[in-house]
Amino acid sequence: MATARPKVIVVGAGFAGLNAVRKLTKLDVDVTVVDRKNHHTFQPLLYQVALAVLSPAEIASPIRSIFTRRKNVEVLLGEVMAFDLAGKKLRLKEGVELSFDYLVVAAGATHAYFGHNEWEHFAPGLKTLEDALEIRRRVLLAFEQAELKAATGNGKTPLNFVVIGGGPTGVELAGAIADIAHRYMRHDFRTIEPQLARVILLEGGPRVLAAFPEDLSVSAENQLREIGVEVRTNTLVTEVGEGYVKMGDERIESAVTLWAAGVAASPLGKLLSAPTDRAGRVQVESDLTVPGHQNVFVAGDLASFTDRGKPVPGVAPAAIQMGKFVARQIARDLEQQPRETFHYVDKGSLATIGKSKAVADLPWNIHISGFFAWLAWLFIHVAFIIGFANRLFVLSEWAWAYVAYKRSARLITDRR
Amino acid sequence: MATARPKVIVVGAGFAGLNAVRKLTKLDVDVTVVDRKNHHTFQPLLYQVALAVLSPAEIASPIRSIFTRRKNVEVLLGEVMAFDLAGKKLRLKEGVELSFDYLVVAAGATHAYFGHNEWEHFAPGLKTLEDALEIRRRVLLAFEQAELKAATGNGKTPLNFVVIGGGPTGVELAGAIADIAHRYMRHDFRTIEPQLARVILLEGGPRVLAAFPEDLSVSAENQLREIGVEVRTNTLVTEVGEGYVKMGDERIESAVTLWAAGVAASPLGKLLSAPTDRAGRVQVESDLTVPGHQNVFVAGDLASFTDRGKPVPGVAPAAIQMGKFVARQIARDLEQQPRETFHYVDKGSLATIGKSKAVADLPWNIHISGFFAWLAWLFIHVAFIIGFANRLFVLSEWAWAYVAYKRSARLITDRR
Repeated sequence: MATARPKVIVVGAGFAGLNAVRKLTKLDVDVTVVDRKNHHTFQPLLYQVALAVLSPAEIASPIRSIFTRRKNVEVLLGEVMAFDLAGKKLRLKEGVELSFDYLVVAAGATHAYFGHNEWEHFAPGLKTLEDALEIRRRVLLAFEQAELKAATGNGKTPLNFVVIGGGPTGVELAGAIADIAHRYMRHDFRTIEPQLARVILLEGGPRVLAAFPEDLSVSAENQLREIGVEVRTNTLVTEVGEGYVKMGDERIESAVTLWAAGVAASPLGKLLSAPTDRAGRVQVESDLTVPGHQNVFVAGDLASFTDRGKPVPGVAPAAIQMGKFVARQIARDLEQQPRETFHYVDKGSLATIGKSKAVADLPWNIHISGFFAWLAWLFIHVAFIIGFANRLFVLSEWAWAYVAYKRSARLITDRR
Repeated sequence: MATARPKVIVVGAGFAGLNAVRKLTKLDVDVTVVDRKNHHTFQPLLYQVALAVLSPAEIASPIRSIFTRRKNVEVLLGEVMAFDLAGKKLRLKEGVELSFDYLVVAAGATHAYFGHNEWEHFAPGLKTLEDALEIRRRVLLAFEQAELKAATGNGKTPLNFVVIGGGPTGVELAGAIADIAHRYMRHDFRTIEPQLARVILLEGGPRVLAAFPEDLSVSAENQLREIGVEVRTNTLVTEVGEGYVKMGDERIESAVTLWAAGVAASPLGKLLSAPTDRAGRVQVESDLTVPGHQNVFVAGDLASFTDRGKPVPGVAPAAIQMGKFVARQIARDLEQQPRETFHYVDKGSLATIGKSKAVADLPWNIHISGFFAWLAWLFIHVAFIIGFANRLFVLSEWAWAYVAYKRSARLITDRR
């Protein structure tokens, strides 16, 4: 009889979970990955699916395929309903129970509507492939409906696209919509003029990209205006409804409204019965464990952690570093080494603005704007994409999109 | 003032409609294409999307993009609700009216459940991209659910896939599922053995591919059996429900049931108030017009036409030929030439069986089976795919799928 190998369950196959598993597969452990989706989504490019530049399969990989060759990894499609940390087991919605020696919870974040969940229907956010396909459907339908109305002599529809929230996602969405409307679609319609579409970015605070240095916020605003985005800062949305957005007394007609104003931690954080912060993130120990449970880690956007006085941001590089760190701590346990303290290495931040603009906040206080920042963004993102084949395909798709204003991703598939 | 150019409305952008429009754009007419979908679907490859080999954008093209450069074509996304042939206009569900000088109705066909529409929920058919994505979801979920159950010690689920109907679509679906289960998925699961999945093809008549010569039916059955499909002819399905199929007293458990047993013409045929056949297809004159309406054509699967004693089959080449014929008749009207009589040129039929097998019924009574028939199928289908870029991508995707058992299309996206 073999002695039992430690069983590690990783909940969530985002950047944190995936990187934890990759390192764990090399240890003498059995790993089970549990995710509600069957695929890992490369979130930084999700907005390109939403704006019909890339197709879902180009930015997502089935989790099962990623680990096909790693025989000590079992992938299960399921949704966690309850944790029993003392009993070292968890229960899935599908009615089955799984037991573990180690647990890594990396369930990420979701949209937050700050007490206005009824807005979600009118202003979807962008976290999953399904979200991206729904946004794609709405954006393309807005143009189609305006054309149908105009072509049959039934008047003009204001083609306004309103993006709420001026963080990186909002800036990327607004920039991409402006590109689509003002450049890509210009020759596709006979009656409406897509280049007259208005793209309005609303930000509650005093500047877009608040997490970036101030000069880059200014640069981002200028770059957005150059490609035709109306940027309005210090603008608080008070109501979102069918076809409109209200800011106090002001009302804007909106063909499509998108939400990029806030994220909240996955509800799984609360299920751990651990202390959480205001956003629902789990306040973890210095080794990213849940207080009182040395064998339970939280990694990625679900973890609330302050490193040398600075909160670790909810970005992909932090999630990747946390995932790897957690796997290393389990390895150290097996070697009977003491645990370490997590440190976040900030390699800089990037936000892209349309087809060839961006801002980059790099180490040593280097700030870049415009085309070179965008080139940096391109290479970093292509390099990170899961799987070599995908990478080549995405590059060739992009190259083709540039040359030919490719349209093959512009499909409206109905909700059933 | 310019004299009014004739207005041609083409309803439906399948093979018939698309080919009519392509020829019409070269005439001195204004063309309006109306379709419920924003994309043309390359139907012969739809089953490859259903079985997660190709992605939607690889077999579909936005109609608007196909005609971007043809300035006399207006594309409208809408659903026809009523025709007024005497008044030369039609009404869309979206509440607008369009008038025409010529009308081409090429709305195609849909599934027929022969009075058992309640079966559709349990056994979807394959006509649209949405159908293909739903089938993909069900097939992939069946494997995932079986793995989850088995891995957590909750017993074995019979992994049976039942395809109802032994025509070309049924044969293609059954062959592709067998390939997926027995070859592609073999290394992806840790607990279940996908190669033990059963694929059962049920045909009510005495042989599969009834429209093909008898020797090719025999060959197709043998090829299906070689790749592990259980073929059952003379088997009438009497009930389809959640997780099972009944044939009289016999009941088979079924993880996924697919319907490929019958098609009916689009309901638009009935709206034309013209004589229709049993399948709801419009019985057209020798120039494919609706009796009594020289300016109203029906083309493609919606047309019922007998050419020199033989009914024209509902296949892509017939639809393409009809579409071109209709455009030519309108051209002849403009040149004050008399109308012609439609003749179908049968260039043969092909049905593919899994990854490298097929049967081909070619002119001069040439029958081919196996790999060379499959090669013929490959070249014909790639050659027909809309758009040069797509063609290259699909070829490279296929090449890659062969070398690497590519998995990127294996995404389960939920219904919202």
